[in-house]
Amino acid sequence: MTGIRFPQPASNKSILEGAGSFTPKFDAHGLVTAVVTDATDGELLMVAHMNAEAVALTLETGVAHYFSRSRGKIWKKGETSGNLQTVREIRTDCDQDAIWLKVSVAGHDATCHTGRRSCFYRTVSLENGEAVTKITDDERHFDPATVYSDK
Amino acid sequence: MTGIRFPQPASNKSILEGAGSFTPKFDAHGLVTAVVTDATDGELLMVAHMNAEAVALTLETGVAHYFSRSRGKIWKKGETSGNLQTVREIRTDCDQDAIWLKVSVAGHDATCHTGRRSCFYRTVSLENGEAVTKITDDERHFDPATVYSDK
Repeated sequence: MTGIRFPQPASNKSILEGAGSFTPKFDAHGLVTAVVTDATDGELLMVAHMNAEAVALTLETGVAHYFSRSRGKIWKKGETSGNLQTVREIRTDCDQDAIWLKVSVAGHDATCHTGRRSCFYRTVSLENGEAVTKITDDERHFDPATVYSDK
Repeated sequence: MTGIRFPQPASNKSILEGAGSFTPKFDAHGLVTAVVTDATDGELLMVAHMNAEAVALTLETGVAHYFSRSRGKIWKKGETSGNLQTVREIRTDCDQDAIWLKVSVAGHDATCHTGRRSCFYRTVSLENGEAVTKITDDERHFDPATVYSDK
Protein backbone atom coordinates (compact mmCIF):
# COMPACT_ATOMS: atom_id res chain seq x y z
CA MET A 1 0.00 0.00 0.00
CA THR A 2 1.29 3.44 -0.89
CA GLY A 3 1.40 6.47 1.38
CA ILE A 4 -0.26 8.91 -1.01
CA ARG A 5 -3.65 10.18 0.09
CA PHE A 6 -6.06 12.25 -2.01
CA PRO A 7 -8.11 15.02 -0.37
CA GLN A 8 -11.84 15.28 -1.06
CA PRO A 9 -12.68 17.34 -4.19
CA ALA A 10 -13.43 21.01 -3.44
CA SER A 11 -17.03 22.13 -3.87
CA ASN A 12 -15.70 25.51 -4.98
CA LYS A 13 -15.32 25.30 -8.77
CA SER A 14 -12.42 27.74 -9.07
CA ILE A 15 -10.41 25.63 -6.61
CA LEU A 16 -11.42 22.37 -8.35
CA GLU A 17 -10.44 23.76 -11.77
CA GLY A 18 -7.24 25.54 -10.68
CA ALA A 19 -3.74 24.47 -9.71
CA GLY A 20 -3.17 22.83 -6.31
CA SER A 21 -3.95 19.53 -4.66
CA PHE A 22 -4.91 16.69 -6.98
CA THR A 23 -8.36 15.61 -5.80
CA PRO A 24 -9.63 12.87 -8.13
CA LYS A 25 -13.41 12.60 -8.21
CA PHE A 26 -14.02 8.88 -7.80
CA ASP A 27 -17.43 7.55 -8.84
CA ALA A 28 -19.80 5.43 -6.74
CA HIS A 29 -17.51 2.43 -7.37
CA GLY A 30 -14.41 4.38 -6.30
CA LEU A 31 -13.10 4.69 -9.88
CA VAL A 32 -11.96 7.37 -12.31
CA THR A 33 -11.60 6.89 -16.08
CA ALA A 34 -8.07 6.59 -17.46
CA VAL A 35 -7.27 7.44 -21.08
CA VAL A 36 -3.93 6.07 -22.27
CA THR A 37 -2.01 7.43 -25.25
CA ASP A 38 1.44 6.74 -26.65
CA ALA A 39 3.84 9.44 -25.45
CA THR A 40 5.64 9.52 -28.80
CA ASP A 41 2.92 9.82 -31.43
CA GLY A 42 -0.22 10.41 -29.35
CA GLU A 43 -2.07 7.28 -30.56
CA LEU A 44 -4.98 6.33 -28.30
CA LEU A 45 -4.07 2.92 -26.89
CA MET A 46 -6.74 2.03 -24.34
CA VAL A 47 -9.34 3.23 -21.85
CA ALA A 48 -9.37 1.75 -18.35
CA HIS A 49 -10.31 2.55 -14.77
CA MET A 50 -8.29 3.41 -11.68
CA ASN A 51 -9.14 3.35 -8.01
CA ALA A 52 -7.24 5.45 -5.45
CA GLU A 53 -4.63 2.75 -4.96
CA ALA A 54 -4.02 2.43 -8.72
CA VAL A 55 -3.58 6.20 -9.05
CA ALA A 56 -1.22 6.26 -6.08
CA LEU A 57 0.84 3.27 -7.32
CA THR A 58 1.10 4.86 -10.77
CA LEU A 59 2.32 8.16 -9.30
CA GLU A 60 4.73 6.44 -6.95
CA THR A 61 6.27 3.86 -9.29
CA GLY A 62 5.98 5.63 -12.67
CA VAL A 63 4.47 2.44 -14.11
CA ALA A 64 0.77 2.36 -15.01
CA HIS A 65 -1.54 0.49 -12.64
CA TYR A 66 -5.28 0.15 -13.15
CA PHE A 67 -8.20 -1.45 -11.36
CA SER A 68 -9.58 -4.47 -13.19
CA ARG A 69 -13.34 -4.37 -12.84
CA SER A 70 -13.71 -7.95 -14.11
CA ARG A 71 -11.13 -9.35 -11.69
CA GLY A 72 -11.93 -6.89 -8.89
CA LYS A 73 -8.28 -6.10 -8.14
CA ILE A 74 -5.27 -3.95 -8.94
CA TRP A 75 -3.92 -4.62 -12.40
CA LYS A 76 -0.30 -3.82 -13.23
CA LYS A 77 -0.77 -3.56 -16.98
CA GLY A 78 1.68 -5.75 -18.90
CA GLU A 79 2.68 -7.95 -15.98
CA THR A 80 1.83 -11.09 -18.00
CA SER A 81 2.54 -9.92 -21.55
CA GLY A 82 5.61 -7.82 -20.73
CA ASN A 83 3.99 -4.75 -22.26
CA LEU A 84 4.49 -2.58 -19.19
CA GLN A 85 3.65 1.11 -19.52
CA THR A 86 6.17 3.67 -18.30
CA VAL A 87 4.33 6.90 -17.58
CA ARG A 88 5.83 10.02 -19.16
CA GLU A 89 3.14 12.50 -18.12
CA ILE A 90 -0.12 12.46 -16.21
CA ARG A 91 -2.89 14.97 -16.82
CA THR A 92 -6.35 15.47 -15.39
CA ASP A 93 -9.45 17.23 -16.72
CA CYS A 94 -11.46 20.20 -15.47
CA ASP A 95 -13.57 18.27 -12.97
CA GLN A 96 -10.82 15.75 -12.14
CA ASP A 97 -12.89 12.65 -12.88
CA ALA A 98 -10.66 11.52 -15.75
CA ILE A 99 -6.92 10.94 -15.99
CA TRP A 100 -4.78 10.99 -19.11
CA LEU A 101 -1.60 8.91 -19.09
CA LYS A 102 1.02 9.45 -21.78
CA VAL A 103 3.05 6.24 -21.78
CA SER A 104 5.90 4.35 -23.41
CA VAL A 105 4.99 0.71 -23.93
CA ALA A 106 7.67 -1.93 -23.36
CA GLY A 107 7.79 -5.49 -24.70
CA HIS A 108 5.94 -5.94 -27.99
CA ASP A 109 4.78 -2.30 -28.08
CA ALA A 110 1.23 -3.67 -27.94
CA THR A 111 -1.52 -2.68 -25.54
CA CYS A 112 -4.53 -4.71 -26.66
CA HIS A 113 -4.98 -8.25 -25.33
CA THR A 114 -5.66 -9.27 -28.97
CA GLY A 115 -2.00 -8.50 -29.74
CA ARG A 116 -2.71 -5.27 -31.58
CA ARG A 117 -0.97 -2.02 -30.76
CA SER A 118 -4.20 -0.25 -29.74
CA CYS A 119 -7.53 -1.52 -28.43
CA PHE A 120 -9.19 0.90 -30.89
CA TYR A 121 -8.52 -1.14 -34.02
CA ARG A 122 -12.04 -0.83 -35.46
CA THR A 123 -14.07 1.99 -36.99
CA VAL A 124 -17.80 2.34 -36.50
CA SER A 125 -20.01 3.59 -39.34
CA LEU A 126 -23.55 3.42 -40.64
CA GLU A 127 -24.39 1.05 -43.48
CA ASN A 128 -28.00 0.81 -44.66
CA GLY A 129 -29.16 2.24 -41.35
CA GLU A 130 -27.16 -0.21 -39.23
CA ALA A 131 -24.03 0.52 -37.20
CA VAL A 132 -21.16 -1.76 -38.19
CA THR A 133 -17.53 -2.17 -37.16
CA LYS A 134 -14.64 -2.61 -39.57
CA ILE A 135 -11.11 -3.64 -38.69
CA THR A 136 -8.50 -1.02 -39.66
CA ASP A 137 -5.50 -2.56 -37.89
CA ASP A 138 -5.03 -6.30 -37.91
CA GLU A 139 -1.30 -6.45 -37.24
CA ARG A 140 -0.60 -8.68 -34.23
CA HIS A 141 2.50 -7.77 -32.23
CA PHE A 142 2.24 -10.99 -30.24
CA ASP A 143 0.23 -14.19 -30.22
CA PRO A 144 -2.33 -13.99 -27.39
CA ALA A 145 -2.65 -17.80 -27.23
CA THR A 146 1.05 -18.08 -26.38
CA VAL A 147 1.41 -15.03 -24.16
CA TYR A 148 -1.69 -15.72 -22.04
CA SER A 149 -1.37 -19.52 -22.19
CA ASP A 150 -1.40 -20.00 -18.41
CA LYS A 151 -4.48 -17.81 -17.87
CA MET B 1 -35.70 9.71 -31.58
CA THR B 2 -33.50 7.97 -34.09
CA GLY B 3 -34.18 4.66 -35.80
CA ILE B 4 -30.81 3.06 -35.06
CA ARG B 5 -30.92 0.09 -32.70
CA PHE B 6 -27.94 -1.70 -31.20
CA PRO B 7 -28.00 -5.50 -30.77
CA GLN B 8 -26.92 -7.04 -27.46
CA PRO B 9 -23.15 -7.70 -27.20
CA ALA B 10 -22.14 -11.21 -28.20
CA SER B 11 -20.94 -13.49 -25.41
CA ASN B 12 -18.57 -15.11 -27.93
CA LYS B 13 -15.32 -13.15 -27.72
CA SER B 14 -14.24 -13.65 -31.31
CA ILE B 15 -17.54 -12.17 -32.50
CA LEU B 16 -17.33 -9.30 -29.99
CA GLU B 17 -13.77 -8.49 -31.05
CA GLY B 18 -14.24 -8.94 -34.79
CA ALA B 19 -15.89 -6.98 -37.59
CA GLY B 20 -19.68 -6.92 -37.80
CA SER B 21 -22.56 -5.37 -35.90
CA PHE B 22 -21.64 -2.55 -33.52
CA THR B 23 -22.86 -3.73 -30.12
CA PRO B 24 -21.88 -1.12 -27.52
CA LYS B 25 -21.58 -2.55 -24.01
CA PHE B 26 -23.53 -0.06 -21.91
CA ASP B 27 -22.88 -0.06 -18.15
CA ALA B 28 -25.48 -0.34 -15.37
CA HIS B 29 -26.43 3.30 -16.05
CA GLY B 30 -26.81 2.66 -19.79
CA LEU B 31 -23.60 4.54 -20.66
CA VAL B 32 -20.34 4.01 -22.53
CA THR B 33 -17.23 6.15 -22.19
CA ALA B 34 -16.44 8.54 -25.05
CA VAL B 35 -12.90 9.79 -25.68
CA VAL B 36 -12.74 12.84 -27.91
CA THR B 37 -9.65 13.90 -29.85
CA ASP B 38 -9.01 16.57 -32.47
CA ALA B 39 -9.11 14.99 -35.93
CA THR B 40 -6.25 17.17 -37.15
CA ASP B 41 -3.52 16.88 -34.52
CA GLY B 42 -4.85 14.13 -32.23
CA GLU B 43 -4.97 16.30 -29.07
CA LEU B 44 -7.14 14.78 -26.35
CA LEU B 45 -9.99 17.26 -25.87
CA MET B 46 -12.43 15.67 -23.40
CA VAL B 47 -13.88 12.51 -21.91
CA ALA B 48 -17.66 12.18 -21.69
CA HIS B 49 -20.42 9.57 -21.63
CA MET B 50 -22.99 8.44 -24.19
CA ASN B 51 -26.23 6.52 -23.86
CA ALA B 52 -27.74 4.60 -26.79
CA GLU B 53 -29.62 7.68 -28.00
CA ALA B 54 -26.45 9.82 -27.95
CA VAL B 55 -24.53 7.19 -29.94
CA ALA B 56 -27.37 6.90 -32.44
CA LEU B 57 -27.75 10.69 -32.83
CA THR B 58 -23.99 11.04 -33.33
CA LEU B 59 -23.95 8.35 -36.02
CA GLU B 60 -27.03 9.76 -37.73
CA THR B 61 -26.20 13.48 -37.70
CA GLY B 62 -22.38 13.41 -37.78
CA VAL B 63 -22.38 15.89 -34.88
CA ALA B 64 -21.27 14.71 -31.42
CA HIS B 65 -24.01 14.14 -28.85
CA TYR B 66 -23.37 12.97 -25.29
CA PHE B 67 -25.42 12.16 -22.21
CA SER B 68 -25.00 14.73 -19.46
CA ARG B 69 -24.92 12.85 -16.17
CA SER B 70 -25.33 16.07 -14.15
CA ARG B 71 -28.35 17.25 -16.14
CA GLY B 72 -29.70 13.76 -16.84
CA LYS B 73 -30.33 14.40 -20.52
CA ILE B 74 -28.93 14.37 -24.05
CA TRP B 75 -26.26 17.01 -24.55
CA LYS B 76 -25.48 18.32 -28.01
CA LYS B 77 -21.97 19.55 -27.25
CA GLY B 78 -21.46 23.19 -28.26
CA GLU B 79 -25.12 24.09 -28.56
CA THR B 80 -24.62 27.05 -26.21
CA SER B 81 -20.99 27.97 -26.92
CA GLY B 82 -21.08 27.33 -30.67
CA ASN B 83 -18.22 24.85 -30.33
CA LEU B 84 -20.04 22.04 -32.10
CA GLN B 85 -18.05 18.90 -32.90
CA THR B 86 -18.23 17.47 -36.41
CA VAL B 87 -17.29 13.79 -36.24
CA ARG B 88 -14.64 12.69 -38.74
CA GLU B 89 -14.24 9.11 -37.53
CA ILE B 90 -15.68 6.87 -34.83
CA ARG B 91 -13.79 3.93 -33.36
CA THR B 92 -14.53 1.41 -30.66
CA ASP B 93 -12.30 -0.76 -28.50
CA CYS B 94 -11.92 -4.52 -28.14
CA ASP B 95 -14.83 -5.02 -25.70
CA GLN B 96 -16.91 -2.19 -27.20
CA ASP B 97 -17.43 -0.33 -23.91
CA ALA B 98 -15.58 2.78 -25.08
CA ILE B 99 -15.94 4.98 -28.14
CA TRP B 100 -13.31 7.23 -29.68
CA LEU B 101 -14.52 10.26 -31.63
CA LYS B 102 -12.13 12.15 -33.87
CA VAL B 103 -13.72 15.57 -34.30
CA SER B 104 -13.35 19.01 -35.83
CA VAL B 105 -14.41 21.70 -33.38
CA ALA B 106 -16.32 24.73 -34.71
CA GLY B 107 -16.69 28.16 -33.12
CA HIS B 108 -13.79 29.11 -30.85
CA ASP B 109 -12.00 25.77 -31.37
CA ALA B 110 -12.41 25.23 -27.64
CA THR B 111 -13.88 22.21 -25.90
CA CYS B 112 -13.51 22.97 -22.18
CA HIS B 113 -16.21 24.99 -20.42
CA THR B 114 -13.37 27.07 -18.94
CA GLY B 115 -12.65 28.39 -22.44
CA ARG B 116 -9.52 26.34 -22.96
CA ARG B 117 -8.97 24.18 -26.01
CA SER B 118 -8.83 20.93 -24.02
CA CYS B 119 -10.25 19.90 -20.65
CA PHE B 120 -6.86 18.32 -19.92
CA TYR B 121 -5.00 21.58 -19.25
CA ARG B 122 -3.27 20.39 -16.06
CA THR B 123 -0.49 17.94 -15.28
CA VAL B 124 -0.44 15.82 -12.15
CA SER B 125 2.82 15.08 -10.37
CA LEU B 126 4.24 14.22 -6.98
CA GLU B 127 5.80 16.94 -4.83
CA ASN B 128 7.08 16.05 -1.38
CA GLY B 129 4.85 12.98 -1.36
CA GLU B 130 1.70 14.89 -2.34
CA ALA B 131 -0.07 14.81 -5.70
CA VAL B 132 -0.44 18.29 -7.16
CA THR B 133 -1.86 19.77 -10.36
CA LYS B 134 -0.14 22.42 -12.45
CA ILE B 135 -1.71 24.41 -15.28
CA THR B 136 0.08 23.92 -18.62
CA ASP B 137 -2.43 25.70 -20.86
CA ASP B 138 -4.11 28.87 -19.65
CA GLU B 139 -5.10 30.34 -23.01
CA ARG B 140 -8.83 31.08 -23.04
CA HIS B 141 -10.49 30.88 -26.46
CA PHE B 142 -13.67 32.44 -25.09
CA ASP B 143 -14.91 34.08 -21.92
CA PRO B 144 -17.13 31.57 -20.07
CA ALA B 145 -18.91 34.37 -18.17
CA THR B 146 -20.13 35.86 -21.46
CA VAL B 147 -20.79 32.64 -23.38
CA TYR B 148 -22.73 30.93 -20.58
CA SER B 149 -24.29 34.12 -19.20
CA ASP B 150 -27.88 32.84 -19.47
CA LYS B 151 -27.12 29.56 -17.77
